[in-house]
Amino acid sequence: MTYCVGLLVDTGLVMLSDSRTNAGVDQINTFRKMWTFQQAIDRVLVLMSAGNLAITQAVVNLLQETPEGSDERPLIYQASNMFNAARVVGDALRAIHERDAESLKEQGHEFNGTFILGGQIKGEEPRLFHIYSAGNFIESSVDTPYFQIGESKYGKPIIDRVITRSSSLPQAAKCALVSMDSTIRSNLSVGAPLDLAIIRRDEFKLATHISIDMDNEYFKMIRTHWGFALKEVFSELPNPNW
Amino acid sequence: MTYCVGLLVDTGLVMLSDSRTNAGVDQINTFRKMWTFQQAIDRVLVLMSAGNLAITQAVVNLLQETPEGSDERPLIYQASNMFNAARVVGDALRAIHERDAESLKEQGHEFNGTFILGGQIKGEEPRLFHIYSAGNFIESSVDTPYFQIGESKYGKPIIDRVITRSSSLPQAAKCALVSMDSTIRSNLSVGAPLDLAIIRRDEFKLATHISIDMDNEYFKMIRTHWGFALKEVFSELPNPNW
Repeated sequence: MTYCVGLLVDTGLVMLSDSRTNAGVDQINTFRKMWTFQQAIDRVLVLMSAGNLAITQAVVNLLQETPEGSDERPLIYQASNMFNAARVVGDALRAIHERDAESLKEQGHEFNGTFILGGQIKGEEPRLFHIYSAGNFIESSVDTPYFQIGESKYGKPIIDRVITRSSSLPQAAKCALVSMDSTIRSNLSVGAPLDLAIIRRDEFKLATHISIDMDNEYFKMIRTHWGFALKEVFSELPNPNW
Repeated sequence: MTYCVGLLVDTGLVMLSDSRTNAGVDQINTFRKMWTFQQAIDRVLVLMSAGNLAITQAVVNLLQETPEGSDERPLIYQASNMFNAARVVGDALRAIHERDAESLKEQGHEFNGTFILGGQIKGEEPRLFHIYSAGNFIESSVDTPYFQIGESKYGKPIIDRVITRSSSLPQAAKCALVSMDSTIRSNLSVGAPLDLAIIRRDEFKLATHISIDMDNEYFKMIRTHWGFALKEVFSELPNPNW
């Protein structure tokens, strides 16, 4: 499986993805599920994927292609705003669906590819979208400032409890990593290395883009301290007297 | 959906179930998913169910029936040990499968009913089983001292972190309630009232069997304090300096 989470706060965006793919338990590989599209001065976009790897890789390849019969940059660099950029991703998904869905169905496979797209294009605030297999999409709101794709359930409670739009970027990054840690501990199909991207509002470039493995000092600290603190909090809660 | 969790520790068993059922979001009802089978001096068993309510209710009815042409007690009261009791539940599931699966399939429904069975029969330690739709089952071990059925993912990380066989019964009950709280917060299809049963080793009767609603003082304390403490722990963890 996969676990990716994107968080939108007032000061920017945090995007975090794992890198484990599996076709059954005996075919486990490491593939990156995060792609970035930057253009100096006017845009920075981060895309994360879940689902069938052949589908999502095909979509990303299409996004990176120059439009046929033109020497312009790929469409995603031309989108005038994030809504249109999400449309470009949705259209690419539909193009791949057109090409592959029938053959997949014949082999008994569902067409399954979903994306989280976050970023900022000049003239707008940072925005965050969840793009479905059908190519349609939804945008995050003040009430729901995050999206998850893949194995989302294990890591959802902590986000629900601590993140709002007014959280800071470091808090959002910390929360994403705690959420990822809970998922990795409970589900074998999600694993490091992780890709973390942070976008600071109005900078139009990646503020941070790092790969985090299990030896990363900060992630190790999160893993140890969070587990330890949870146990402490748990033991401090009064026991029932039943 | 449903969320049920059974925990086996050295001193006994904790079983906790929610009571929400839904067929779509516009057909939400409250049904108990916990049943007990007690016989003074020699046995106490608790059964919890998830899946298609018609199937699980039919199984429980069968378990409560006197064997045909006999005036003996139902088979589950005659089982000589917990393994055989789990077999009785598995056989009842197979009998209902025999009767209903074909008709369900014709209507496009899967045959879906799973159970957690925990308890103690004289001559043995307390034991805990997870019974699948096919009527087969697995038993918990020192490494995995708990089973969950239904919406299990939200509430799994906390159990993985704090529960071992040497946890006390009150700790196990507290952990089950924290796990249930996380699930209820993140998933609308799981809801109170909750049924909680505690079995103390070698007592051969229920030590506790209570219904917990959202006004229950202890559960309210858990909900408030746990959320608050998590936020505190989270804010005390150092932020990354990326």
